Formats: sequence, C-alpha cells, structure tokens
Amino acid sequence: MTIRYPNGKKYIPIQKIGHQKKVDLSFSNRGKSLEDELNETNEFYLSRGIAVIHKKPVPIQVVNVNYPERSAAVITEAYFRTPSTTDFNGVWQGNYIDFEAKETKSATSFPLQNIHDHQVEHMQSVSKQGGVVFFIVKFTSLDRYFIVPYDNFEKYWERMKKGGRKSITLIEFETMSLEILPRFNPRLDYLKAVSIMTTTSNNATERQEDV
Amino acid sequence: MTIRYPNGKKYIPIQKIGHQKKVDLSFSNRGKSLEDELNETNEFYLSRGIAVIHKKPVPIQVVNVNYPERSAAVITEAYFRTPSTTDFNGVWQGNYIDFEAKETKSATSFPLQNIHDHQVEHMQSVSKQGGVVFFIVKFTSLDRYFIVPYDNFEKYWERMKKGGRKSITLIEFETMSLEILPRFNPRLDYLKAVSIMTTTSNNATERQEDV
Repeated sequence: MTIRYPNGKKYIPIQKIGHQKKVDLSFSNRGKSLEDELNETNEFYLSRGIAVIHKKPVPIQVVNVNYPERSAAVITEAYFRTPSTTDFNGVWQGNYIDFEAKETKSATSFPLQNIHDHQVEHMQSVSKQGGVVFFIVKFTSLDRYFIVPYDNFEKYWERMKKGGRKSITLIEFETMSLEILPRFNPRLDYLKAVSIMTTTSNNATERQEDV
Repeated sequence: MTIRYPNGKKYIPIQKIGHQKKVDLSFSNRGKSLEDELNETNEFYLSRGIAVIHKKPVPIQVVNVNYPERSAAVITEAYFRTPSTTDFNGVWQGNYIDFEAKETKSATSFPLQNIHDHQVEHMQSVSKQGGVVFFIVKFTSLDRYFIVPYDNFEKYWERMKKGGRKSITLIEFETMSLEILPRFNPRLDYLKAVSIMTTTSNNATERQEDV
C-alpha cells in the first residue's frame, strides 16, 4: 500500500531519497529561499518574545493608481527602487539589530557586485551608532550559512574598492565569520550567533554548536 | 522699498502677520506633511551622524510585472497592504527607536480609528524588548506636535477597547505627552524630546524648551 499525505503526495521515506546532503533533509527545507528561512525564524522569535525583527517591504515607486468603485485601489504602474538600507531590522534585548541577507549559487566565493554602496554606507552609519550590524550569507549549493559582522566585512569591501578581488572566498568566510547550522525551529538561530559574536573576539574562527 | 527673498516672495516681518500662531510661520513649512517634516529631520540626523532612522517603504503586494526589453521592469498590478508594524525605525546612540507618525485635522482630539491593532501589538512587543517606542501626533490645524511614549498611550487604547471614548483629547495630550516645538533645522527635533522622556518621569507635564 502506498501511503499518501493529505495533499495527495506520495510518502517517500527519507532513507530512500538519493544524493542527500548532510544537513537537514528531514526538515524539508530544500528550495526555500534564505528570505523565507529568516522570516520563519523571525516569526519564531516574535511569538516567543525573544526579539522583534522584520523584513522591510521592498521599496516601490508608485506612478498610477486606479480607484474602482466598491473595491480596493489597484496600482497599475509602479517600479522597483534600489534599496538604500538593509533588508532586516529590529530590536533584541534592547539592542538595535540590522542586517542584509544574501544568497550565492557559487560553491567557492561570494560575489560583492549585488551589494550597493548605499547599503554599505548605511551599515557603517549603524555601526557608528552602536547598532549590531551584519550580513547573513547562504551558499545555496553547499547548504552553508555564515554570519559576518559588518566590521569584519569592511576590509573585503575596501579590498574591492582598491581594485582587488570582487568577491569573498569561502575560505575567507571560514576564517572571519561564524557559521550558522540550520535546525528545525528556529530554522536559523542567528541571534545565538550574534550573542556569541558580541561576547567573543570577532576574529576568532568559531563554529556555532548545535544545541 | 519692499524687501524680497531670492525666490521672489515678499518679506513680511513676523510681527505684521495677522492671526499668527506662536510657532514657525517664518520657516514656510505650512502645508508640509508630517511625514515630509520627519524625513527632513531624519536626513539632518543622518548627515550629522546623530542617528540612523528611516521611514519604512509602504508594503505593497505585487501581482503582475512586465519586463519590457531594454528597460526597467514595470509593475502593472499591485495592491496596498495594511502595515503590520510602525512607520519609522532606526538606531540612536545604541538605542532602538521605533515610532508611528499620525496627523489629525481635529483641533480638539486625536481619533484612534486609524491606528491598527497590529501596530499596537508591535509597539507593545518593542517596548518589552527594551526599544524606545512612541507616537508623534500632529494637530495640523493648530500646528502643534506631541510625542507620546507608548507606555503613556496604552491606557487610552485600553480605555477605547473597554468601550470608552475612541479618541485622545488635546487636553490629555497636554498632560501626558511632550510637545515638540518646530524649528528651522532640524524641523522636528524629536530625539531631544526622547532624551528628555527617557531621563524624566513620563507622567510629568513638560514643554520642550526651544534652543
């Protein structure tokens, strides 16, 4: 007899799935975007009273709006704008939290070209104001996640600005950032990594212990 | 001889303006929205390294996007969504700052109907996390601005929820909030009010001194 889920999908025991990667197949999170994973984590934090952190809405320039009778206003012409700040911000135990989340398909390095000057300037300002500011970078082909304090990121950005390489290598991530091991719930416990970052030297190589 | 400003406007000494309100006619800010005034103030703070506070983008649900060749993507169908958080947030001297800005045309009270339950829940969560959270309310017909710490606001919200009045009176604002006197630059120095709020009892009636 074939067991089926209520949605009609066939049940396939996990051990039968071929080519599995080491982490987390049991949690069915493959294919989820980093943004989704972070939104789920933030919902977990909010519902448990741990932190209040949200993704900001995508900035959109509205040009034309129709107001049909008896129904909601319809935006009929609008354009995406370049974000001048970061994706996520909020508050955790009185600390201002601010970060940018990025994915790369590369298995060897993270390209810097999709980070904007304005975002880096923003992060620098936040750092000066005493905010806790960082990147979360996901190497999707490796299922590996790194959290990079802005202060550690800065020298790689400056290296590029001075004509050096336009990416940060995986090996560099392993030496200057903290790795986040994905779990079931919360999916990406990045605040645990932040609490480690803020209590230890940023330069030490560390791997977050899974609890 | 009539003295004129570089923009061609006639110079009228303040004492000649009839029916003048006490504040700020000379700065030609009449008619500006509270949002514009706060954006200007935040630009001032940012440029001086005082704080990093931004208005969040309006949340929009994008349904259809066209990608014409050789030009930017055009959103052809989208809808406004109800915000689940507040308008503004950021960091100031390590503090997480979060607030909602509202205007009213009424000269006697501020109606609570355009504040959403979700926003109040958000502000409550932020308060519990140690964030600095408040409302800025402008009585447009009076050119008066009040800053209300969330903790002071809460009892008026609860009064409404228990079937009481659906607004906060001007007199109540005068007793439980701090008045911000508009200036030239920054237009609304609300962080000065915040620093007073956070160092004195919230219940005392105070009027911000203009420097």
